[in-house]
Amino acid sequence: MAKDRKIRMAFAGLGSRHHGMLEVLSWTGLADVVAVCDVYADRVEYTINKVKEWYPGVTVHGYTDYKEMFEKEDLEAIYISTSWATHARIAIEAMKHGVMPAMECGGGNSLEECWELVRTYETTGTECMFLENCCYGREEMTILNMIKHGYFGEVVHCQGGYEHDLRNEIVYGRERRHYRFGNYLNKCADFYPAHALGPIMKFLDINNGNRMLSLTSTASKAVSLHAYLEKERGENYDGTDLKFKEGDVVSTVIKCARGETILLTHDTSCPRPYSRGGRVQGTGGIWMEDNASIYLDGISKKAEAWEPFQQYMDDPKYEHPLWTEFRGSGVKGGHGGMDFLVLSAFCECVKNKLRPPVDVYDAASLMCITPLTEASISCGSAPVAIPDFTGGRWFEKKTPVVSKYALDDVYPERYDIKPKTENE
Amino acid sequence: MAKDRKIRMAFAGLGSRHHGMLEVLSWTGLADVVAVCDVYADRVEYTINKVKEWYPGVTVHGYTDYKEMFEKEDLEAIYISTSWATHARIAIEAMKHGVMPAMECGGGNSLEECWELVRTYETTGTECMFLENCCYGREEMTILNMIKHGYFGEVVHCQGGYEHDLRNEIVYGRERRHYRFGNYLNKCADFYPAHALGPIMKFLDINNGNRMLSLTSTASKAVSLHAYLEKERGENYDGTDLKFKEGDVVSTVIKCARGETILLTHDTSCPRPYSRGGRVQGTGGIWMEDNASIYLDGISKKAEAWEPFQQYMDDPKYEHPLWTEFRGSGVKGGHGGMDFLVLSAFCECVKNKLRPPVDVYDAASLMCITPLTEASISCGSAPVAIPDFTGGRWFEKKTPVVSKYALDDVYPERYDIKPKTENE
Repeated sequence: MAKDRKIRMAFAGLGSRHHGMLEVLSWTGLADVVAVCDVYADRVEYTINKVKEWYPGVTVHGYTDYKEMFEKEDLEAIYISTSWATHARIAIEAMKHGVMPAMECGGGNSLEECWELVRTYETTGTECMFLENCCYGREEMTILNMIKHGYFGEVVHCQGGYEHDLRNEIVYGRERRHYRFGNYLNKCADFYPAHALGPIMKFLDINNGNRMLSLTSTASKAVSLHAYLEKERGENYDGTDLKFKEGDVVSTVIKCARGETILLTHDTSCPRPYSRGGRVQGTGGIWMEDNASIYLDGISKKAEAWEPFQQYMDDPKYEHPLWTEFRGSGVKGGHGGMDFLVLSAFCECVKNKLRPPVDVYDAASLMCITPLTEASISCGSAPVAIPDFTGGRWFEKKTPVVSKYALDDVYPERYDIKPKTENE
Repeated sequence: MAKDRKIRMAFAGLGSRHHGMLEVLSWTGLADVVAVCDVYADRVEYTINKVKEWYPGVTVHGYTDYKEMFEKEDLEAIYISTSWATHARIAIEAMKHGVMPAMECGGGNSLEECWELVRTYETTGTECMFLENCCYGREEMTILNMIKHGYFGEVVHCQGGYEHDLRNEIVYGRERRHYRFGNYLNKCADFYPAHALGPIMKFLDINNGNRMLSLTSTASKAVSLHAYLEKERGENYDGTDLKFKEGDVVSTVIKCARGETILLTHDTSCPRPYSRGGRVQGTGGIWMEDNASIYLDGISKKAEAWEPFQQYMDDPKYEHPLWTEFRGSGVKGGHGGMDFLVLSAFCECVKNKLRPPVDVYDAASLMCITPLTEASISCGSAPVAIPDFTGGRWFEKKTPVVSKYALDDVYPERYDIKPKTENE
């Protein structure tokens, strides 16, 4: 394949998320968008016009049926930002057509579906990437780099959350055709574990020497969305009768095979400033996102006193080399640059047929958290087992991928980590 | 009883904690210390000299057997700061002698012992107070005041922790006769839930219209104390062979009858700055101790942006009136003033025969968390039921105590809350 040839990509699910990513992808210059798909025809038409604007000279076709699209188009990759419920089924169909899917963040529907993702990859050999953009956040990558270089000693506990006031988006989802509405109305679970858990899985070598064994999950009462509706729209709005099932705060604790614990928080129905609530704690120190601080035993200047994390991020000794390079070249793209990086990582995998940094086993491990938290909550916070999607291979190290976007190993070519041979 | 007569108090357990409290109590001018007791004779002798210095003119007797002390002395109250394992048994003996105990913070040994505390109170009629000083912290009291006045709307979730680097105290406890050593070596539980849970119980009306129903608890691996010993003392110290059982971070999630969730963290074996990790979240806003910030929907100036909590604490509109008064009179005593307040509250209850702000039902509810977390951890984080120590009365409001130290109702005489009669 010519080095500068662009990959042929489709976009499925043309809501608000795809819009930003369509533009960011055009800045990478790595792909042409040749087909777009959504069940709503108005969105297809809108997006075709955006493709014409952002990808001049590219011929793009529109579809309202993704199966028809796979039959008719010659695709190499597909970006999936449909409703959560349909990520897996479209990704499975894509793999069966030899098209590599990038699934946007979102929880799975069932364990069975997570297994089907894995089985389809193993049968077809088509890779599948979970597009966890926060794995490429500057804070998260600096922490990943510092953990792999031992600054936290032996890590014992991590925390993360999706702590985001989405009240407006949720309660008016009915009018705006947004799937959050139906989910919050009918289910109680951690709907959105990926932003917190994706980076933590890389911190803790999940599916690469470690795995998640079990979890318990507990939901608070669900009253904040109703309070919001009453306040915002008054008593005459019919929505004030709605009884949302999703607990306002869902707390989940995961235990790992190597003994680490992970605390996940899903907190999207209450008024609050945004946070991903990151925390990493080890025998050598602690990082905490909520006060933007770090403390490292023997490195921090004053005993038991926080230091600003910013000064560590700004130091190439600690910062992840991908970010040092990215900042040097001028940060581009949405969400502080992480969208640009995650799309670049995906395109590199498609083009060079690499195992993606968040692969199908990681995708299944992330997505299964949603049905498992639902199960635990339904059973009074009973512990539930988390499957080993690797089929017993989790305690072996994956063969390293030599890529600057790698997350399982830190920038292997720079640190001279050589891929192992089969017999090692 | 003459208004200015001092109560006759004993001190049991003469380790480091009692020392500060003995001096702070002398500043209150509310009590005479007439007897002191410890199993170590050297500590008894040391403390007798301190009493002579801080309580001039008071005759004090020393004991190494608390039962002998109860037989021989004419006491009204006893302050208990022995090892955790003996708080309850001494308090029970005290109540049987008509002596009101103040138990220092610490977890219970068993559910049965918590029940025995309750039964002894119900049989003897002697009140018993759990000396949770953090209930009187300025942050905690401001939050209590704000919750009771509705600024957080309906509260749905609280967090708290005991996050304190105690590595030195724990691993050298053997040499220093400190009971933490044996506990960390042999048990895995949340040893110290009170600083976090005490204030939260008051925030959520526990045993006063609400109760804690069940919990799950999960412990991380235990590696930090060993890493500390290896680093501090080198390989030749015999302590480096010690295998501590206590997980480095213990995460516990409690579900309440009214639907709130409580997250407790016990984190005392890793290097870190001190925190009690407080968080309160409701339909109206959020307070977070770790970034010293608050956000209130419709009150905070900018949408989804934190404001410094200090400016709320400094405003008499939000600050608890006890603290406004306390600051006006010049804050005294240890731990930022909370020790002075909690001892003053205790002395007031003894003198005026009042139900204490943290009473025997609250004490049992706090102390049972330790054996229950141990049970849950032992059973793979299985949910365990939390007893209703009130015998079915938890959903009735307690008769308010008209006292400026009251915690179940906010400063009732100022807010004109009248005690209910029996028939109301």
